[in-house]
Amino acid sequence: MSSGINHQVGVKASSQEIYEALTETEKLAQWWTTDTRGSGAKVGDTLEFWFYSHCQKFDVTELKPGTRVAWKSPKGQGNNEWEETEVTFDLSTDEKQTFIQFRHSGWRERTDFQGHCSMRWAVFLLSLKDMLEKGKGRPYPYDLEVHYR
Amino acid sequence: MSSGINHQVGVKASSQEIYEALTETEKLAQWWTTDTRGSGAKVGDTLEFWFYSHCQKFDVTELKPGTRVAWKSPKGQGNNEWEETEVTFDLSTDEKQTFIQFRHSGWRERTDFQGHCSMRWAVFLLSLKDMLEKGKGRPYPYDLEVHYR
Repeated sequence: MSSGINHQVGVKASSQEIYEALTETEKLAQWWTTDTRGSGAKVGDTLEFWFYSHCQKFDVTELKPGTRVAWKSPKGQGNNEWEETEVTFDLSTDEKQTFIQFRHSGWRERTDFQGHCSMRWAVFLLSLKDMLEKGKGRPYPYDLEVHYR
Repeated sequence: MSSGINHQVGVKASSQEIYEALTETEKLAQWWTTDTRGSGAKVGDTLEFWFYSHCQKFDVTELKPGTRVAWKSPKGQGNNEWEETEVTFDLSTDEKQTFIQFRHSGWRERTDFQGHCSMRWAVFLLSLKDMLEKGKGRPYPYDLEVHYR
């Protein structure tokens, strides 16, 4: 078992607002990729995140309103290195903010590509924060580039 | 052995320029913390990164000009969870950019605080990128806040 990605961000928003941004297709499209398809509303639903011609699928594996969202990448879909990896968002609120504890686990190896994904997840979590705090995120293809293509 | 932080960023700068930004005290002060003391120029030197009244020390353990910089956090200095952890910057250049492969390894546990540090390292690597590409970084205390204090 190899290491994964582990990020935490604090957002001035309720856990319910964040939960909606993680489960409603049109809200996911405002912070991760503008071309988000499928549904994230129920366990067993499948979300499709499109990046130009590349599609990354996730099956929804766990939902606890206001507390937790978990997805798993199916076999043979999307990035090879993401196959069967899991993404979780755990929410907790204190007097100042709601914390999102983000984890992308189950990577088989610690690769350079994982480092690229780690930076991009950080950028997209900041996009989610901006969407909720300022009304506007920076979803793909408007995301801050972390390298030159 | 637990997981660590693994980030990659591409910068339009030469590996020599990046190497200088990682080894010269006055350049480190332009992207990580404005109050950087000590020296990072030779193996065995010690750098002190001050965040208000908190000091994080690192001993320089490896230097390969234009290729690699490695630091180790000494025992009983700075963040408890950072004790004896290692930070490495590996540089590689292609026709478009120089990649920085950043790793912060040797964490004993995957904690929420590690997630906080992971986001902050991402923000500081973007600050380093901005310093080199645009002439101005966002070192502490001017860094983008990833949570509210």
